[in-house]
Amino acid sequence: MSSSNAKRKLQVVSPVPADIDVANSIEPFHICEIAGDINLSPKHYDLYGKYKAKVLLSVLDELQGSGDGYYVVVGGITPTPLGEGKSTTTVGLCQALGAFLDKKVVTCLRQPSQGPTFGIKGGAAGGGYSQVIPMDEFNLHLTGDIHAITAANNLLAAAIDTRIFHEASQSDKALFNRLCPPNKEGKRNFSNIMFRRLSKLGISKTNPEDLTPEEIRSFSRLDIDPNSVTWRRVMDVNDRFLRKITIGQGPEEKGMFRETGFDIAVASEIMAVLALTTSLSDMRERLGKMVIGNSKTGEPITADDLGVGGALTVLMKDAINPTLMQTLEGTPVLVHAGPFANIAHGNSSIVADKIALKLVGPGGFVVTEAGFGADIGTEKFMNIKCRYSALTPQCAIIVATIRALKMHGGGPEVVAGKPLDQAYLSENVALVEAGCVNLARHISNTKGYGVNVVVAVNKFSTDTEAELNTVRNAALAAGAYDAVICTHHAHGGKGAVDLGIAVQQACENVAQPLKYLYPLDISIKEKIGAIAKSYGASGVEYSEQAEKQIEMYSRQGFSGLPICMAKTQYSFSDKASEKGAPTGFILPIRDVRASIGAGFIYPLVGTMSTMPGLPTRPCFYDIDLDTATGKESWSSSLLVTVLM
Amino acid sequence: MSSSNAKRKLQVVSPVPADIDVANSIEPFHICEIAGDINLSPKHYDLYGKYKAKVLLSVLDELQGSGDGYYVVVGGITPTPLGEGKSTTTVGLCQALGAFLDKKVVTCLRQPSQGPTFGIKGGAAGGGYSQVIPMDEFNLHLTGDIHAITAANNLLAAAIDTRIFHEASQSDKALFNRLCPPNKEGKRNFSNIMFRRLSKLGISKTNPEDLTPEEIRSFSRLDIDPNSVTWRRVMDVNDRFLRKITIGQGPEEKGMFRETGFDIAVASEIMAVLALTTSLSDMRERLGKMVIGNSKTGEPITADDLGVGGALTVLMKDAINPTLMQTLEGTPVLVHAGPFANIAHGNSSIVADKIALKLVGPGGFVVTEAGFGADIGTEKFMNIKCRYSALTPQCAIIVATIRALKMHGGGPEVVAGKPLDQAYLSENVALVEAGCVNLARHISNTKGYGVNVVVAVNKFSTDTEAELNTVRNAALAAGAYDAVICTHHAHGGKGAVDLGIAVQQACENVAQPLKYLYPLDISIKEKIGAIAKSYGASGVEYSEQAEKQIEMYSRQGFSGLPICMAKTQYSFSDKASEKGAPTGFILPIRDVRASIGAGFIYPLVGTMSTMPGLPTRPCFYDIDLDTATGKESWSSSLLVTVLM
Repeated sequence: MSSSNAKRKLQVVSPVPADIDVANSIEPFHICEIAGDINLSPKHYDLYGKYKAKVLLSVLDELQGSGDGYYVVVGGITPTPLGEGKSTTTVGLCQALGAFLDKKVVTCLRQPSQGPTFGIKGGAAGGGYSQVIPMDEFNLHLTGDIHAITAANNLLAAAIDTRIFHEASQSDKALFNRLCPPNKEGKRNFSNIMFRRLSKLGISKTNPEDLTPEEIRSFSRLDIDPNSVTWRRVMDVNDRFLRKITIGQGPEEKGMFRETGFDIAVASEIMAVLALTTSLSDMRERLGKMVIGNSKTGEPITADDLGVGGALTVLMKDAINPTLMQTLEGTPVLVHAGPFANIAHGNSSIVADKIALKLVGPGGFVVTEAGFGADIGTEKFMNIKCRYSALTPQCAIIVATIRALKMHGGGPEVVAGKPLDQAYLSENVALVEAGCVNLARHISNTKGYGVNVVVAVNKFSTDTEAELNTVRNAALAAGAYDAVICTHHAHGGKGAVDLGIAVQQACENVAQPLKYLYPLDISIKEKIGAIAKSYGASGVEYSEQAEKQIEMYSRQGFSGLPICMAKTQYSFSDKASEKGAPTGFILPIRDVRASIGAGFIYPLVGTMSTMPGLPTRPCFYDIDLDTATGKESWSSSLLVTVLM
Repeated sequence: MSSSNAKRKLQVVSPVPADIDVANSIEPFHICEIAGDINLSPKHYDLYGKYKAKVLLSVLDELQGSGDGYYVVVGGITPTPLGEGKSTTTVGLCQALGAFLDKKVVTCLRQPSQGPTFGIKGGAAGGGYSQVIPMDEFNLHLTGDIHAITAANNLLAAAIDTRIFHEASQSDKALFNRLCPPNKEGKRNFSNIMFRRLSKLGISKTNPEDLTPEEIRSFSRLDIDPNSVTWRRVMDVNDRFLRKITIGQGPEEKGMFRETGFDIAVASEIMAVLALTTSLSDMRERLGKMVIGNSKTGEPITADDLGVGGALTVLMKDAINPTLMQTLEGTPVLVHAGPFANIAHGNSSIVADKIALKLVGPGGFVVTEAGFGADIGTEKFMNIKCRYSALTPQCAIIVATIRALKMHGGGPEVVAGKPLDQAYLSENVALVEAGCVNLARHISNTKGYGVNVVVAVNKFSTDTEAELNTVRNAALAAGAYDAVICTHHAHGGKGAVDLGIAVQQACENVAQPLKYLYPLDISIKEKIGAIAKSYGASGVEYSEQAEKQIEMYSRQGFSGLPICMAKTQYSFSDKASEKGAPTGFILPIRDVRASIGAGFIYPLVGTMSTMPGLPTRPCFYDIDLDTATGKESWSSSLLVTVLM
C-alpha cells in the first residue's frame, strides 16, 4: 500500500467546465481503494454502493493509543450572498496536501441538505477542479443520515402530541394500566426506559405495584403544556408552506388542534446531537435528554420522559458512522452531519474529525470546514465543538475573495442571480483596501484562540496583482501567519500547493495552547456579552422574552452550557447591511432557546428562517435522468454557490 | 457453487422463543454468499453493509433470454385483527423449498413501514422460525427506499404550493422570464422537461422567443385550483395529528393557507409507482404523469407540468433496485416496495419478481405475498400487478387458521391486545366447519384466475386433528388443488415441506391460462361491478361525489385503467363485522380517486385512514440499544402480528 494519497493527476481544461462536467469527467476509485490508503480494512467499514462507505466508530477504539494528525479549521470572511468558496478551498487544500505534498490527509465536510440542492443551490460538493465525487451521491441521500434524523425527529414529535392527546382523555389509573400492562402471568413490569423517568422523579421502586397513587400520577402524567412545546417537525425539503401550520384538525383529534411548524431537517436538534456526540452511549444520553417543552408546572420534559430515547438511538445507530468519499484527486473525505450554522453550530461531526485525526496520524492533516464566516463558524468550532471534543486545532484558515472585500470596502450590493456591478469586475484597489477591515477583525478574533491563522485568497479571473497584494499585506499586518493566493478552482490541488505549504508550517509552529473565548461557569448573559464583544458590539439588549427564557434556563440548571448565537452571516452585527467591521452597536437578543441534548443555549439575534422556500424556477428543472444510460443531468446553468 | 439453497439447518427450540431471540440466535451469512447462491456476482449488486445488497436492474437485461421459474402468490382468508401468518407462511415455504427440497427459490416481500413498527406492530419480518434477518435492518431504514419516496413525495408537494404562490403574485411575463431566464449570452432556452408541457399544450416551438403571449400564458401559468389538489404530504411515522392540517399560515405566505394533511409514506402514489414500474424509463414516465390536481378549467396537472418529474426520478433511481436479504435458513429474499393494500394494491414490486423469476430459472420458485385477504390482495395481484408485469402465476396459496375460521363460523369477536375467548382455545369443529364458507369463496374466486389453489393451514398449538381435517376436506371440496397443515412457525422450513411439495405439484400441473376478472376496455362502473360481484355483492351504490369523479376521470381519458378497491380487509363486504361469506349486500362507493402515474382508479368503500396513530404505550418503549455492545433490544412482550 502506498503511503501517499496521490492517486490521480488531473488533466485540467481552461476555461473550467461546469461542475457536473468536471465531476463526470472522472471515474471515481472504488471506495475500498480510498479506504486502503488510510489503512482501513473491510472490517472497519460498511459499503454503501461502490463509492461510499460508512466508517465504523469501532475504529476509534482500535486506534485509541495512536497519535493525532494536525487539525485545521477552515472559516471565512463575512461572505457575499454568492459565497466565497470555503468548501472549494477546503477540498482544494486537501487535494494539494494529498496529491502534491505527499501528506496523509482527510477532508471533513458537512452533509448538504437536499432542500437547497433542489431549490437554489444545486449542490455543495465544492466546485471546479476541487470537488467531492460522485457529486449526485454526495448531494442526495448519501448514506441516509439526514433521512434517519428526519425519522427520529418526527417520531418524537408524534409521541408528544399523541401523549398530550391520550393524557387528556384518560384517568391516572387508566394511563398507568396502559403504560405498565400486566403480562400473561398477570405481572406488571417497568420497561428499562421507564426507570429514567422514575429516577428523575426520585422514585427508586422497581415494582409497579408498589407505587402510591401520587407516584402513579407523577410517573404516568407528563402534563405537557401544549403552549410550551418547542419541538417542531422537520422535512429535508424547501417547503415554505409548512413554516406555520395548525395540526390536529381531524375529527378524531377532538378539537385538540395547535399551531406549530416544520423546519428543514438539518435544523433538527438531532442533527446537532449527531454533530456533537462523541460515542454511541453519549448519543443515547443526549437524545434522551433533549427537552421538548415544559410541564404545566415548569419542569422540562425530555424524550426519555416520553419513552422514546432508546428508539431514537436505534434509528440513529448507523447515522453515527461517518461516510467515506473521495475528492477529484482521489484523496479521502469524511462526510458527516450538517447542522444549521445559526440556530445550531454549523460544523461537521466530532466523531468524523476524531477518526480522521487518528487515521492520518502524526504529521498528517485533517481539514474541517466551519459554516458561515469566522465570526460564527470558527467561533462555534472553538467554543462549542472543540469544547465537547477536547480536540485542539493548530491552524485556522480564513478564506477571502477580492469580491467580498470590495463589498466590505463599500462596493455596491451583491445580489444572487443578478449581474455583478462593474466595481467587482475591474481593478479597484481602494475598495479592496477599505474592505480589509473585515478580514483583519476575523484574523485577530481567530488568533485569540491560540491558533496560527492562514489567509487563503480564492482567486477569480478578474482579480489583479495589485488587489491580491493588498490583501496579502493587510492580512500579514493584521497578524496572519501567512496569506496565500489560491487557484484550486481552476487547477485542482496544484492551485493550492502554496496554501498547503503555509498550512503545514503554521501547524508545525503553533506556540500557544487553545484558549476559549469564555469559560462555561459564568452566567448566560456574561457569555453572550463576550461573544457580542468579539462582534464589535458595545453592549447587548435583551427583549422581555429573552430575559424570561434566560431566567428559566438558569433555574432549570442549564446555564453552564456554551452559547450558540443565531445571527446573520452577512455582517459582524445583527444587520446584514452593515459591512466591514462595525463597532459601537448594541446587539439585540430577541429570544433565547436551548438545545439541551445537543448541549447549547441559542440566543436569537433577529429572525432566523429555519425553513427555506423554492424560487419560481427551482433547480429541479435542470435535474433529470437519462433513463437509457442511467446518467443524471444536473444542468448547472443556474447553479450558484451559496454559503450554508 | 452449490446448486442448493440449503445453507443452514436450524436447531429449533420448543416452546418457540420470542421472535427477536430466534432472530438473534442466528449469525446471518454475508450477503455476498446469499447472492452467490443465485448466481449474482459483485457487479450485479451494490452492498449496503454486510447483510443487505441492492440488486441492480441491469440483471434483467443480462438475463433477458433465459427462462422464468414458477411464480407463486400467497394470499389469505379474511383475517382476524391478529393476522393469520401470511408473511410467516411465505418465508416458511421458501425455507422448505430452498433448505429441504433443494429448489432454487427467492422470497419476494414488501418493505414494512416504520410507522407501525414503532406503533403497534413491532416488525414485519415473519415470525418464529420463519423470519427474514437481520430483523432490525429489515424493519428500519432498509436501504432507504421509503425515505427516498418521502423525499420525492414532499418535493412535489412543496413544488405545488410554491407554484400556486408564485403564480398568484406574478404577471405572465414575469413568470415566463423566471422560468426561461436569459443566459449569459442573453439567449433563452427551454429546459428539457419543459418540452413535455409544451407538447401537452400542442406547442411545437423550440425557441422561447417565438411563443405568442397566449402561448406564454398557457405554458407559464398552470392555474392550479387549490381546492382540487389531491397530492398530500407524507411521513413514515404514525402521526395522527397530521391527518388534517392547515398550511401556509406564516406571514410570508400572505394568507394563502389551505387545508390538507399527511399520509403515512407507504400511502404515497410514488410507492405504488415503485411497485408497478417495469424499468427506469417506465418509472420516469409514471412519475412525470402523476396527477396532483386540476387547473381551474379542469385539466389534470402533472408532476411534469411542474417541472419536477426528472428530479423525482433522480431521487428514486436507487430505490428501483430491490434489496437482497436472507431467511433464517439462508435462502434469498428480495424486499421491495410496500404500497398500502387498500388505497393502493398492496403487493411488492414487479421488478423484484421479474429479477427473481430469472434468477431461479425454470424449475425454481418465486414466492410473493399479496397484502390483506385474497379478496383484496390476490385480486389486485392478478388484475393490476400481473396486468402491468405480463407475468403469469401458476399457483396461489391461501393461508388459513383455525382461529380465523372459527371467527367466520360465528365465534366471538377477536380484538388485538385482549385475551382470546375460550372458543378459540379448545376444540370446536362446528365453528370451524361453519367458517369454511369464507375459505371456500376465496378458493373459488382465486381459481377463477386459472391458477391452482393450495390452502396452507398455519397450525397453532391449540388446533385439534378434527378441526384441521375439517378444513382440509372443505378446501378440497371447494376446489383447492391441495390443502396442507404447516408448522413452519415452530419448525422453520421443515414444518412447510409438505406445503412445498404441494406447491411444486400445483405449479407443474397448471392447466389453464391466466384469466383476468375484467377487461380494461369496459367502463369504470362495469369494472367496479365485476369486483363487487366477486365479493358477493348484489349491486353497487355510488355517492354523488363518486359519480362526479367517475365522470371526470372518464372525460380526462383515464377510464381504461384497472380498478384498485379501497375496502376493509376484515370482510368480503364493506362492513368489517360481516364475517363468513356475505351475499346480497349493496356495495357503497363513497368516493373515487385515481393514481394516474401508478396506473389505477381507486374507489373508496367506506372511510380509509391513511395515517395511523400511536397507542398510549407505543412499541418504542421496548426498543432500545445496548450502547456497550451496539445490540438492540426489541422486547417482544407486546408484539402482535397484524396483517398490513
